[in-house]
Amino acid sequence: MKTRAAVAFEAGKPLEIVEVDLEGPKAGEVLVEIKATGICHTDDFTLSGADPEGLFPSILGHEGAGVVVEVGPGVTSVKVGDHVIPLYTPECRECPSCLSRKTNLCTAIRSTQGQGLMPDGTSRFSYKGKPIFHYMGCSTFSNYTVMPEIAVAKIDPDAPFDKICYVGCGVTTGVGAVINTAKVDQGSTAAVFGLGGIGLNVIQGLRMAGADMIIGVDINNDKKEWGERFGMTHFVNPREIDGDIVSHLVNMTKRGADQIGGVDYTFDCTGNVTVMRQALEASHRGWGKSVVIGVAAAGQEISTRPFQLVTGRQWMGTAFGGARGRTDVPKIVDWYMSGKIEIDPMITHTMRLEDINKGFELMRSGESIRSVVLF
Amino acid sequence: MKTRAAVAFEAGKPLEIVEVDLEGPKAGEVLVEIKATGICHTDDFTLSGADPEGLFPSILGHEGAGVVVEVGPGVTSVKVGDHVIPLYTPECRECPSCLSRKTNLCTAIRSTQGQGLMPDGTSRFSYKGKPIFHYMGCSTFSNYTVMPEIAVAKIDPDAPFDKICYVGCGVTTGVGAVINTAKVDQGSTAAVFGLGGIGLNVIQGLRMAGADMIIGVDINNDKKEWGERFGMTHFVNPREIDGDIVSHLVNMTKRGADQIGGVDYTFDCTGNVTVMRQALEASHRGWGKSVVIGVAAAGQEISTRPFQLVTGRQWMGTAFGGARGRTDVPKIVDWYMSGKIEIDPMITHTMRLEDINKGFELMRSGESIRSVVLF
Repeated sequence: MKTRAAVAFEAGKPLEIVEVDLEGPKAGEVLVEIKATGICHTDDFTLSGADPEGLFPSILGHEGAGVVVEVGPGVTSVKVGDHVIPLYTPECRECPSCLSRKTNLCTAIRSTQGQGLMPDGTSRFSYKGKPIFHYMGCSTFSNYTVMPEIAVAKIDPDAPFDKICYVGCGVTTGVGAVINTAKVDQGSTAAVFGLGGIGLNVIQGLRMAGADMIIGVDINNDKKEWGERFGMTHFVNPREIDGDIVSHLVNMTKRGADQIGGVDYTFDCTGNVTVMRQALEASHRGWGKSVVIGVAAAGQEISTRPFQLVTGRQWMGTAFGGARGRTDVPKIVDWYMSGKIEIDPMITHTMRLEDINKGFELMRSGESIRSVVLF
Repeated sequence: MKTRAAVAFEAGKPLEIVEVDLEGPKAGEVLVEIKATGICHTDDFTLSGADPEGLFPSILGHEGAGVVVEVGPGVTSVKVGDHVIPLYTPECRECPSCLSRKTNLCTAIRSTQGQGLMPDGTSRFSYKGKPIFHYMGCSTFSNYTVMPEIAVAKIDPDAPFDKICYVGCGVTTGVGAVINTAKVDQGSTAAVFGLGGIGLNVIQGLRMAGADMIIGVDINNDKKEWGERFGMTHFVNPREIDGDIVSHLVNMTKRGADQIGGVDYTFDCTGNVTVMRQALEASHRGWGKSVVIGVAAAGQEISTRPFQLVTGRQWMGTAFGGARGRTDVPKIVDWYMSGKIEIDPMITHTMRLEDINKGFELMRSGESIRSVVLF
């Protein structure tokens, strides 16, 4: 079949909207009509050429929502007509990682996915007879796309595509980092470094988890209102304080009998390795957990004195918010539908596929929280 | 009163055995007759002058066992005649840290202890009229010493002092790192970097916790027999393998359906920051926990790519094995008495106080696992 798609032919160039060829689903695969897709910084990281694992030509996009329109042989968990969210972190429920119950990082199709291919080692996409790579196993910048059955989450059919597509990456990453990775307790203190889309979703996850102090840290004062919109209780602009941000946060969190100070849970949503260190060191002696969410530039490293760990801080990270895609993503959609979390105000821009490059511009300039492309 | 003690008058000089003056216990304090004390690398680190927080003159030693001979006003939890182990990590059961149930790092007397003083801000020790500093709140290189009541653990009076003094630091640190900090599961894989006294205690903790593979890593082949003595199942000398230690361990731990490999739990017992990084990176994608136990030289830093954390590894540390002194130390002594853990073979040398400097030499040369001084 033919499908309209935004193709990344070369690193550093705008996407081109063309008709590409798409083979139907093979055994264990499904064909999905994408109805809406968010544009994420990770797409831009790859498009820029900075991602050492980036492949071209490819069809980017990994934050979508759509409808199953055809299933390949042997598919049992979804059927034609099901509403689904594509999963760049699949959930096979059979590999040692899935069976461990300790991680969401399913390894069933990891190697082919990393090579831009379906599990059988080939691509379903081609253009003028030449193959085009899949991206993160999703390629949601195409009106139709093929995915393994284990890489789609079946969701509430009443949920609006143009909002819940964001659950495919940003919402789940932020909310999941709080509930699955950090496992934040009621009454905790928390600090969120970087109030972009992920940071705001961490904030609403913290509100949901019952944190008492939710401190947002950003060098842009315009983010204060955004943070407060989702539950932030305190805002700190590191450029407008005396002294360093670590001592500032430690002092802010001295409360009641606890005159040691330090934040119970900290989250880096910046990708800046200096900020990652600050987030760790601002966490509480004895039990502070610091979660790295942001993706650092290639080759960059985090550092600290080991004393920070020996005195009880834990340094951890999260991918897709520690969420098991087929199990947890439908729940997050339900939370949106019941009003437990919000998405609508974060979708600041919607556009047609033809304007997808404008969506990238809005993201780069910081003007959008999330731009969503409608098909 | 007078007591015989080994005094560290100056950094880098041998200890001197002299009679010092000791004031009796004040309110909330106890006078303990030390019967035996181990010599630990931490004592030597301070004695060398490399410890930026080291104070002189002081009475070192923090790994002792003895008998309460006098109690100050208000002391209720121990009485004269009780056998006790001094605790450099006290347990007040009242501070926010103790009450958090998340850490063993009691903060009740932290600041005065760091200044080499009792909680009232003075020292009980003096020599020729000039005060001598306490060390880690213990000063077990003295025949008699004074400690706060919250800094002694009451233990089984049948336990032999010359063995269970080692529970005061090394045994608890190693065994505790496994059970309190890493919380190792039955059937796990584990790697222990550095097979000195702490490493061997980590190994016996892993045997107790039911780890399937217990891999010892050391550049000294003589340590193989020692490791096996306490439950090590595999030995790796990083200088005798092809390629790097991280890939070697990852390959060794590919087992059954898990062809990703990586060690479930890793422990650094070297204090070498390069080894700390290797320990983290050899831990399993998705769920590996890496525990820093070794104390690094002042100013040294650990580093890694944040990707290591984002893909599910956790970097943590432990002090006193995460043990709550008054609660957990008596249990560890009981485990020794019932044969659940071993100590005797690790006490390779015993000596009188007069020979304490020889004990330091044996430790520095690597000839001893643990030297114990008897009073």
